[in-house]
Amino acid sequence: PICLLASTILGGVGAIDPPAGEGMIEGLRGVVLTTPAADSLRRWHDLLGERPHVAGTPGDRVVISAIAGAFEGMGLETEVWWFEPLLARPISASLTIVSDDDPVEAPNAEPTGDSAPRRRRGVMPLAITEDELLNDPSTRHPDLSWGWNAYSASGVVEAGVVYANRGTREDFARLRELGVDCTGRIVLARYGGNYRGFKAKFAEEAGAAGLVVYTDPGDSGDDRGPVWPEGGWANATCIQRGSMLTLPYKGDPLTPGVPSLPGVPRLDPDEVGLPTIPIQPIGYAAATRIMAAMTGPTLAEVDGWDGLADWAGGLDVPYRLDGGDLRLRLEVQQERAPMPTANVLGTLRGAERPDELVIVGCHHDAWGFGAADPLAGTIVLMETARAFAVAAEHGLRPRRSVVFAAWGAEEFGIIGSSEWVEANRDRLGAHAVAYLNLDMAAMGTNFGASATPSLAAAVVEAAGLVPQPRGSEDADAGDAGDVTVASRWAGERGTAACGDLGGGSDHVGFLCHVGVPCVSLHAGGSRGTSYHSNYDTLTWYRSTVGDDYAGALMLARITAALATSLADRPVPPIDPTAIVEGLPARLDRLDVLATEAGLTLDASPLRAALAEATAACRDARSRIAEIEASGDAEAIDELVADLVRFERVWLDGEGLPGRTWFANTFAASDRDSGYGAVVLPLLAEAIRYRDQAALDRAVERYRVTIDRIRTAASAIGGSGG
Amino acid sequence: PICLLASTILGGVGAIDPPAGEGMIEGLRGVVLTTPAADSLRRWHDLLGERPHVAGTPGDRVVISAIAGAFEGMGLETEVWWFEPLLARPISASLTIVSDDDPVEAPNAEPTGDSAPRRRRGVMPLAITEDELLNDPSTRHPDLSWGWNAYSASGVVEAGVVYANRGTREDFARLRELGVDCTGRIVLARYGGNYRGFKAKFAEEAGAAGLVVYTDPGDSGDDRGPVWPEGGWANATCIQRGSMLTLPYKGDPLTPGVPSLPGVPRLDPDEVGLPTIPIQPIGYAAATRIMAAMTGPTLAEVDGWDGLADWAGGLDVPYRLDGGDLRLRLEVQQERAPMPTANVLGTLRGAERPDELVIVGCHHDAWGFGAADPLAGTIVLMETARAFAVAAEHGLRPRRSVVFAAWGAEEFGIIGSSEWVEANRDRLGAHAVAYLNLDMAAMGTNFGASATPSLAAAVVEAAGLVPQPRGSEDADAGDAGDVTVASRWAGERGTAACGDLGGGSDHVGFLCHVGVPCVSLHAGGSRGTSYHSNYDTLTWYRSTVGDDYAGALMLARITAALATSLADRPVPPIDPTAIVEGLPARLDRLDVLATEAGLTLDASPLRAALAEATAACRDARSRIAEIEASGDAEAIDELVADLVRFERVWLDGEGLPGRTWFANTFAASDRDSGYGAVVLPLLAEAIRYRDQAALDRAVERYRVTIDRIRTAASAIGGSGG
Repeated sequence: PICLLASTILGGVGAIDPPAGEGMIEGLRGVVLTTPAADSLRRWHDLLGERPHVAGTPGDRVVISAIAGAFEGMGLETEVWWFEPLLARPISASLTIVSDDDPVEAPNAEPTGDSAPRRRRGVMPLAITEDELLNDPSTRHPDLSWGWNAYSASGVVEAGVVYANRGTREDFARLRELGVDCTGRIVLARYGGNYRGFKAKFAEEAGAAGLVVYTDPGDSGDDRGPVWPEGGWANATCIQRGSMLTLPYKGDPLTPGVPSLPGVPRLDPDEVGLPTIPIQPIGYAAATRIMAAMTGPTLAEVDGWDGLADWAGGLDVPYRLDGGDLRLRLEVQQERAPMPTANVLGTLRGAERPDELVIVGCHHDAWGFGAADPLAGTIVLMETARAFAVAAEHGLRPRRSVVFAAWGAEEFGIIGSSEWVEANRDRLGAHAVAYLNLDMAAMGTNFGASATPSLAAAVVEAAGLVPQPRGSEDADAGDAGDVTVASRWAGERGTAACGDLGGGSDHVGFLCHVGVPCVSLHAGGSRGTSYHSNYDTLTWYRSTVGDDYAGALMLARITAALATSLADRPVPPIDPTAIVEGLPARLDRLDVLATEAGLTLDASPLRAALAEATAACRDARSRIAEIEASGDAEAIDELVADLVRFERVWLDGEGLPGRTWFANTFAASDRDSGYGAVVLPLLAEAIRYRDQAALDRAVERYRVTIDRIRTAASAIGGSGG
Repeated sequence: PICLLASTILGGVGAIDPPAGEGMIEGLRGVVLTTPAADSLRRWHDLLGERPHVAGTPGDRVVISAIAGAFEGMGLETEVWWFEPLLARPISASLTIVSDDDPVEAPNAEPTGDSAPRRRRGVMPLAITEDELLNDPSTRHPDLSWGWNAYSASGVVEAGVVYANRGTREDFARLRELGVDCTGRIVLARYGGNYRGFKAKFAEEAGAAGLVVYTDPGDSGDDRGPVWPEGGWANATCIQRGSMLTLPYKGDPLTPGVPSLPGVPRLDPDEVGLPTIPIQPIGYAAATRIMAAMTGPTLAEVDGWDGLADWAGGLDVPYRLDGGDLRLRLEVQQERAPMPTANVLGTLRGAERPDELVIVGCHHDAWGFGAADPLAGTIVLMETARAFAVAAEHGLRPRRSVVFAAWGAEEFGIIGSSEWVEANRDRLGAHAVAYLNLDMAAMGTNFGASATPSLAAAVVEAAGLVPQPRGSEDADAGDAGDVTVASRWAGERGTAACGDLGGGSDHVGFLCHVGVPCVSLHAGGSRGTSYHSNYDTLTWYRSTVGDDYAGALMLARITAALATSLADRPVPPIDPTAIVEGLPARLDRLDVLATEAGLTLDASPLRAALAEATAACRDARSRIAEIEASGDAEAIDELVADLVRFERVWLDGEGLPGRTWFANTFAASDRDSGYGAVVLPLLAEAIRYRDQAALDRAVERYRVTIDRIRTAASAIGGSGG
């Protein structure tokens, strides 16, 4: 009945072409590909998106328990892994335009006698919370909070205003060039262009006394299309929340490198680099009021206007750099304290090599309901887990263990996954085959992926097993028919290509701290955003992304297929040649950048070493194919251990300059923008900071690494050759 | 592979003898009998017993979500059924012995001038919470509360004391006879002998100003054996919490007969009969202090001592009726308010007759951690659900739907199940085949059951399929070997017999309100109790009941087997003759009681009607066997509908005197003790209250019912005959 069952269901998925002679493997893959169902994805969404669940709050505990119950219900080995990181919670906040005729402590303030009636201060409070909406009663949920940025300093500031565009390093440099002084002022910056924490960090460095961050309508508001609830884009009161951490490591700010478990010593919160100024996020209704009240020259009136042309966003008022007489009063009170939260791990023990791990993860915490972030990924995680659990009930259990991980406190600084990685460093280093991340994955039906190069081919293969659903953008195009996700992904280019993995989600600990190859799966295409706002509700998701869960279903199938390849094939599909084969082109691009920066990148030692390493990797690939074909179990076991070890060659005890936690020298998150990926960061950062000595040193470090790659590649499957 | 799987596992369960020719049925039964596992039961316990979860608190919501997640994880159709009943929560409480040399407002109190130092009042505060224990850190959990009785009135009383034994109707009558006046006094009563709410009700009726209830060491303390943590019995600080509702209906006090959903009109809380005096539960350390400070005559010194001999319990001080000079100050503050909580329902849709329902239930709310009450049953519910879910994944789905129900707010007054029954009255009346209750079920390995007579044989059969685990009491007896639970249950008597179903748990709504046949499954034998105390933790359970989950595993198997019979056999095993065949003996016993009460029970019209009804029922049973053997699907469908309808013949629109919500005239909870069962309550109550007219009227009502039984029995399978 099992084979019958699997093949019966398989019949319904045209793109799946079960190869002969691999009965049990195809059986597992068949069941996990065909088990995921839209109805079930919708129910996970109902279960986890019912209430706001910010890390450390009662709603967080409810979601943790729901996931633990679900994993238990599937028969997975379930662990609720509690930890206690430094989190933050909002106590109070306000933002007010103070009229310039009566500023507090203004030089021209006249003392008034007790008996004289005090002149009423001219003030205009600005909205710091979203409008409640009739079409979505959940926007009135009592657990929702006003807009806040976690880890803001607490305090009151009353000061003039400077507009700093997106608050990047370059933007503040430009202000300095123009002679606009941020000292003691409140900086107004728009979201986008970098990780928000850097806006605050650079504002502090520029001497600012406070920061107000707003969502610009040109980025995600009414300039983009109809706004919520008529359309999916941010309306004028929509506020992006988010963390402001910018530490040189991920995880609990107080326990870098070690898990934030009870008994572990903590740093003093005052001595880690947390924000020192109050920070407040707002929507563009409030931002319009501020910009309209600024009295300095408009951008066009500024000398050097040319360089400021792209500083104007979508607000319907002229953009100005200097607030002039305008004064804002900003008050933020937050509590920073250790608060318990948890990762929930459900393990399906491998049938043959249970120590070897494939980890599939997505965080569970949110800034509100989190229907999109993270649940658009969390539901894919749950459904993939369910698919494997169903297969296991049918006796189809993968060779290696699969760990399904719902991470806590990602939103505060990728905390839960990083803490778990820190606690399991040795085990992951020795036995983790791959980590698949699903954060906010299902936002449409246009599939894409970022991956460590060695896993890119496996991702493309998995995407080739799943039919492409018809997206809303295909409304006029009829059925997508027999097209696979991979062929649509390849598009007119003809090649499906994974992007580079950067920062910004739970793969960072795996990839950058312990060197586990990672994949981030996602699908976009919906028109709008509810990112980190109180509008990120089930109602918004179903109305904007869709009610049919076609994208989530597609992703659950791809995730299940990819995890099956990684966990069940005798040799997991790790390509040892992909990284080195991609390096020459990457060096070419860096060479151009170095020249532009006035530096000299002498890559010839690298290219020479690379030629030898590439040959060794190709030999290794041949040996892998031979050993896999031989079916020699013992040789295969050794081969897999070699392959896992090989993936760690980019780790470097020294780590990246100024951030040793980032031990992987192949890929890192961008140290100045946060989200983006930086490949070969030692070279890239030396070029960015125009440091010829660092660049020379980076070349030497990479030469050593590439030599190590050659040696390690020669050892793969070497004991048999 | 399924048949292989089932029979392979079945091989390990010696008692299971799969009959030939029933492949699919045996397949389902085989899987559900063999899936339950001790490890899994332990994990359910970890998941649900991790935190205090009193109905309406944050911990309650965590458990609700965990169960919903688990049902989702199993692939069941999951519903979180929120409702909002009147609950109570503790605000503050204190109990103090006030020295008799300076009572508040005592007649001899001398006024003291402001300048004179006030004499320090001699007071001794009594403990109203359990000692925290080193061996069990969970006893220090911040969500635990002091001892409290839900729905106590709020207020402060300072008064003398009267000891009222167990606070039954008879006890207060005895005090009246002895001339002991309760008016304005605080009554001290020990737990046991009746439902605690009646202690308060009768105390109020006797004019008491307050009530203190204590756990007597002779009932469950150090007189019984070693106390917690050395043994399992209540130590001197252990306190039994519990509800004080005594309304003539179950469920939300404010919505009798209708579900307490949003929009449903509520009664005024001041106009339902909630307690009007403050009530405080204590342990026997505090009770000893009170009894020792009482200054009235000892029991032996009271005239009429003979009748009081059994009023002395296990306190190590002489028992006295009258406190004499002793004054107690009792302050209780509670909030009574509507608070949201939920039932969680997971439905496995039947393959052929999905409208027909078999419901398996246990509540999820507790007074603390609830490791024993309710989780000793809830884990059996979860594991039974998992067994059916696994079978469904194997394509083995029962003919009828099985609903797994985790009820909310049982502890406050059987609220969640009653509200759901009220909301589903018509559906349950037409289609509910049976309800199985598991409250606090696995407290040992000595199996027992109470059941509607028509289901008793099915229970015995299910118990015959499961091997008897070796209990702790068998430590010297070696392995129980091939003995089945049924044969051990039958014991030396040679017959396994179900008890009568009474009040006290979630079957009441099904049985008494809508007439669905019910079974309550349980297993005892452990030495000790943590009932409704802060000591009801996983540590206590594993140390006292056992760490091997043998009893829970046994119950999960029996529950699964019984639910399979009810949900999957073409004709569910409902025996139409059992009730009527048992009636003559019941009438004999009532006859004796009536005579003792000086009444005349003229049962001859009943016996005559009964003879005819019994014959009709036996004919029906023969027809059932014939139709079942015929395999005629259409006739079987009609037969099942007839059988379900037949079970409702005891329902009577008039209900029981003074409590119309109790519509079932065959069985009810005891109206004066609460927990016990009363069979043929119209007769039994008339006899108890020595009311000849009521007795005569009851005979007439039962004669009509028995005639209806004859008619209804003749209709069973009648359309075919």
